[in-house]
Amino acid sequence: MIPIVPIVGKSNTGKTTFLEKLVGELKRRGYKVAVIKHDVHGFEIDQPGKDTWRLARAGSDIVAISSPDKIAVIKKTEHDMSPDEIEAQLIGGVDIVLAEGYKRSTKKKVEVFREATGRELLCQEDELIALVTDHHFPMGVPQFDLDDASGLVDLLEKSVLAPMEESEVSIAIDGRVVPVEGFAEQIVAKGIMGILSALKGVDSPSEVTVRIKV
Amino acid sequence: MIPIVPIVGKSNTGKTTFLEKLVGELKRRGYKVAVIKHDVHGFEIDQPGKDTWRLARAGSDIVAISSPDKIAVIKKTEHDMSPDEIEAQLIGGVDIVLAEGYKRSTKKKVEVFREATGRELLCQEDELIALVTDHHFPMGVPQFDLDDASGLVDLLEKSVLAPMEESEVSIAIDGRVVPVEGFAEQIVAKGIMGILSALKGVDSPSEVTVRIKV
Repeated sequence: MIPIVPIVGKSNTGKTTFLEKLVGELKRRGYKVAVIKHDVHGFEIDQPGKDTWRLARAGSDIVAISSPDKIAVIKKTEHDMSPDEIEAQLIGGVDIVLAEGYKRSTKKKVEVFREATGRELLCQEDELIALVTDHHFPMGVPQFDLDDASGLVDLLEKSVLAPMEESEVSIAIDGRVVPVEGFAEQIVAKGIMGILSALKGVDSPSEVTVRIKV
Repeated sequence: MIPIVPIVGKSNTGKTTFLEKLVGELKRRGYKVAVIKHDVHGFEIDQPGKDTWRLARAGSDIVAISSPDKIAVIKKTEHDMSPDEIEAQLIGGVDIVLAEGYKRSTKKKVEVFREATGRELLCQEDELIALVTDHHFPMGVPQFDLDDASGLVDLLEKSVLAPMEESEVSIAIDGRVVPVEGFAEQIVAKGIMGILSALKGVDSPSEVTVRIKV
């Protein structure tokens, strides 16, 4: 599984500003990065009258636009997808996923705090990987200045970004993520790689995606 | 594999207008539809200053924004992806993919033609599933009026949209699609389903996605 780190904080604490620094620092160190922004109020990214907008309005469930240097995909969904579901269905080939605004995620989080926007933290101590803050809290959680993306990446490298020697497996059944770790993960990965090794065109892959419609 | 149908034609023949009708007709008949638009000149879908734009500018390889009813993903790519690659990596859960503007695809195509924008077709007869045209050509290819999305969907239902009884498998190795059909397809599908059936949470899935990082 690609590590997913929620970045949370109250409104106007500067989450996006800190995320820009964090993404920049991860990129300087050579990592591939995805950011998922959660917007419960809905968003408009497409512009009225454009072809993509017309095709979505005509009822297309998914509209994609592809150019030589980037691709955009807009997909209608039936529920508010979790970062795990988004990662499984739409994100591949990155080393880390930063998820902004998923306050209710059960994953360990990084909270961004500024004294000017409130006195209390959103998270309890045991929900936190780290605090990014202009105010020191008497807690046993690593705390970094609002400018210190480098310090946080050092910490992430020691924890979630640590290189994994085993294969990593993510499985989605009808769009829902099925957790698989340890022995089961190895059975699945090695069993599937064994099956696929008989196919032409499969030599020494570093990432494999299989989709089966039953 | 999800069927992928390129819709091609010269500039200003009305490809998008016809696609709107085609998507509408497919939706009326209950199909789930994706459209991929090819834009070799690049596109701007995001708006300067928005958070997603800021995070892409900061270097993020993938930026996603998720709301309860839709999700958008913008991904940097290293090459002009084919519809097969886009389908394998980013599109799932649909019955058909309509791909606009992939003139060089080796798949059988639907060409949209209007007399006002040229005298000759882009495609040879043997490259075509059908013509959508205001001018009858003396060819052995099904031809439909520019308004006749219903006629084309009837044809697609008899060919690519025909229900398939077998499992369908798509495999991407390091982002490149590996073709797998017939006996190999069944071995892969049944082998993987057999492995996964031992996991908790896997009962009678209709679609399974597995990603393995080696």
